[in-house]
Amino acid sequence: MPIADKMVKMVESASMIRKMFEEGARLREKLGPDNVFDFSLGNPDVPPPPAVKQVLLELINNENTSHGYMSNPGYPHVRKALADYLNKEFKVGLTQDLIVMTVGAAGALNDTLRALLNPGEDILVPAPYFVGYNQYAFVAGANLKTAPTLPDFHLDLEGIKASITKNTRVMLINSPNNPTGVVYTKEELGSLGILLEEASQKFGKRIYLISDEPYRKIVYGVEVPSVFDAYPHTIMLTSYSKELSLAGERIGYLAVHPKAEDAAMIAGAAGVTNTMMYVNAPALFQQVVGQLQGVTVDIDIYKNRRDMFCEGLFAAGYEFAVPEGAFYLFPKSPIENDIKFVGILKEQNILAVPGTGFGGPGHFRLSYAVPEKIIKGSFEGFKKAIDCIR
Amino acid sequence: MPIADKMVKMVESASMIRKMFEEGARLREKLGPDNVFDFSLGNPDVPPPPAVKQVLLELINNENTSHGYMSNPGYPHVRKALADYLNKEFKVGLTQDLIVMTVGAAGALNDTLRALLNPGEDILVPAPYFVGYNQYAFVAGANLKTAPTLPDFHLDLEGIKASITKNTRVMLINSPNNPTGVVYTKEELGSLGILLEEASQKFGKRIYLISDEPYRKIVYGVEVPSVFDAYPHTIMLTSYSKELSLAGERIGYLAVHPKAEDAAMIAGAAGVTNTMMYVNAPALFQQVVGQLQGVTVDIDIYKNRRDMFCEGLFAAGYEFAVPEGAFYLFPKSPIENDIKFVGILKEQNILAVPGTGFGGPGHFRLSYAVPEKIIKGSFEGFKKAIDCIR
Repeated sequence: MPIADKMVKMVESASMIRKMFEEGARLREKLGPDNVFDFSLGNPDVPPPPAVKQVLLELINNENTSHGYMSNPGYPHVRKALADYLNKEFKVGLTQDLIVMTVGAAGALNDTLRALLNPGEDILVPAPYFVGYNQYAFVAGANLKTAPTLPDFHLDLEGIKASITKNTRVMLINSPNNPTGVVYTKEELGSLGILLEEASQKFGKRIYLISDEPYRKIVYGVEVPSVFDAYPHTIMLTSYSKELSLAGERIGYLAVHPKAEDAAMIAGAAGVTNTMMYVNAPALFQQVVGQLQGVTVDIDIYKNRRDMFCEGLFAAGYEFAVPEGAFYLFPKSPIENDIKFVGILKEQNILAVPGTGFGGPGHFRLSYAVPEKIIKGSFEGFKKAIDCIR
Repeated sequence: MPIADKMVKMVESASMIRKMFEEGARLREKLGPDNVFDFSLGNPDVPPPPAVKQVLLELINNENTSHGYMSNPGYPHVRKALADYLNKEFKVGLTQDLIVMTVGAAGALNDTLRALLNPGEDILVPAPYFVGYNQYAFVAGANLKTAPTLPDFHLDLEGIKASITKNTRVMLINSPNNPTGVVYTKEELGSLGILLEEASQKFGKRIYLISDEPYRKIVYGVEVPSVFDAYPHTIMLTSYSKELSLAGERIGYLAVHPKAEDAAMIAGAAGVTNTMMYVNAPALFQQVVGQLQGVTVDIDIYKNRRDMFCEGLFAAGYEFAVPEGAFYLFPKSPIENDIKFVGILKEQNILAVPGTGFGGPGHFRLSYAVPEKIIKGSFEGFKKAIDCIR
């Protein structure tokens, strides 16, 4: 093999995903873009808020704007702006030294996992879960283990407790959740914190909580409770991919709870990992987000789509929980075999992702990061697909 | 330990480097910026060419400019532009599928090493070498082994031959070289190619050549020969950090020789690694560099500094090879112990990096990515430091 043995499997699974994308492109070419109902991708299509363009122009027209290396964990003034904002939002006492600017949330997660985990240790994640976590665990040389969730996809605390072993180093959660749209409540996060403290005591080894929150601002009438309140040994990480629609610019950060055991050492190690992997987060967009704390895309666009999509699917006879956040629906497959049902949807030119890929078999994922006309246009196909099962 | 065992050493060595930087900042604060002669950093201070600003403004004012995800290995039209440019420069028959846009040259190297190397395999690099290679080898789980160089820091082909073992998977070169400023000739690269082919035959295992070329355009009256001509099983990688002074923006690429054994599979695996680690290279700057192939900063600025610095150091009595490229000098330490001599320089408020850190003991590195007045102002101190030895 010319490539590393362990890469072979990764290349194969990536090539499956690529085939799915190419199929979408092929269908659009064949049928016209308005006749393909592609809900397979979580690529925000809502434009960035106008303030992004304004700040970009100001920065580029200012000859003092730097495009060079900065302190590897990020510009001190940007990290200070984030700490100030987060302290206002979470009352947590963050300092800029506990924040690392990263190459998106993916970079932040890679940094944190590499900093915390010895190869062969376990990451525990409630299933269904974002499919990328398999890749990030692979990069860290760690094992991704799953815990069950309740039927409504909220945390199954008994199930989590039973899944923790002496090899568990990290509990990884994602709320608002991809693919389910669930937002964990203050109460369940609090219970999770108590559970993680007890498990850390039981196994004589600190279990850290990593909270991946790129959809924190994409919520519909609910607040996302602070994970910092629930458990001190927490690293929160996120990106501006969704809240500012800057997914391709790869800008995010991680923040270590000031009361985490050895907080400074963890932030330091995550910063060093950042240096080893990426050197630093992109300079221009660090400076952009430093000026745009609290600014978001127009969330109502996503809310209207969610409402429209839910109504149409409900009318067509699908079963699902109405998502409180993110931009995904995770309906039950009308037949047990979700891969087969996704094939049936494809006959209606509807592209969805089987829940099996997210560790949630018997379901399928629909992203509504697509224009309303695509959502509206799909209802007839959804109806036909379910009718063809009955 | 709250952090991964292997991270402890990395954090310690990073903290040493950080201390050096902080020392520079402390001295500048104490003595004023014009009285500290900081040659420790390779952070380009020459402004980006005006075309960068122009293209950035055009892109930002164009509402069709994307900030979202693209195909993970990079925008097809950008990779096409690069392939066209490289084919003109190297006559090599590259296609866009053999190019991956990356998060700087560091990202490109991490991608390529992870794609090629099984954990525990060896990377062979001629010493002295860029200190970051230790980190990238660590990220890939591989071993960095060194081969000797000739007294003038050109390739020691016999030494390389003797250093290759059955565990060697990758030969890694860097020309123009950091820290020595050497540019390998067409002849020595050709001989290296023959040597690598023979060694691959001997050990029954393809050895790949990785050529790290971020300083390709920063040369003074010489051409950097094409490494693609020397050996087909080659991956060339680089960034726009130096040639466009965009180090902080993290934009680079890798290109796999079309005739490399399993070229398509290697490019595919590098693209998947890119996805796993960073998702994609920053969107806006991909679009910028796609329009600026062949554009560079004003190289004469570096050339004038090199000439001035060489003249001053020569007059002060230092021994060194005049660099043909990059922006570093690598003089002999007047005493054997380079760490001690760097301490003596510091007494003159001159900051340099000991050669020991680059695997080149008995030398020290000076970066001339600094204004001319800093170079001029340092000569008295350099003279005093060498006098104080004698």
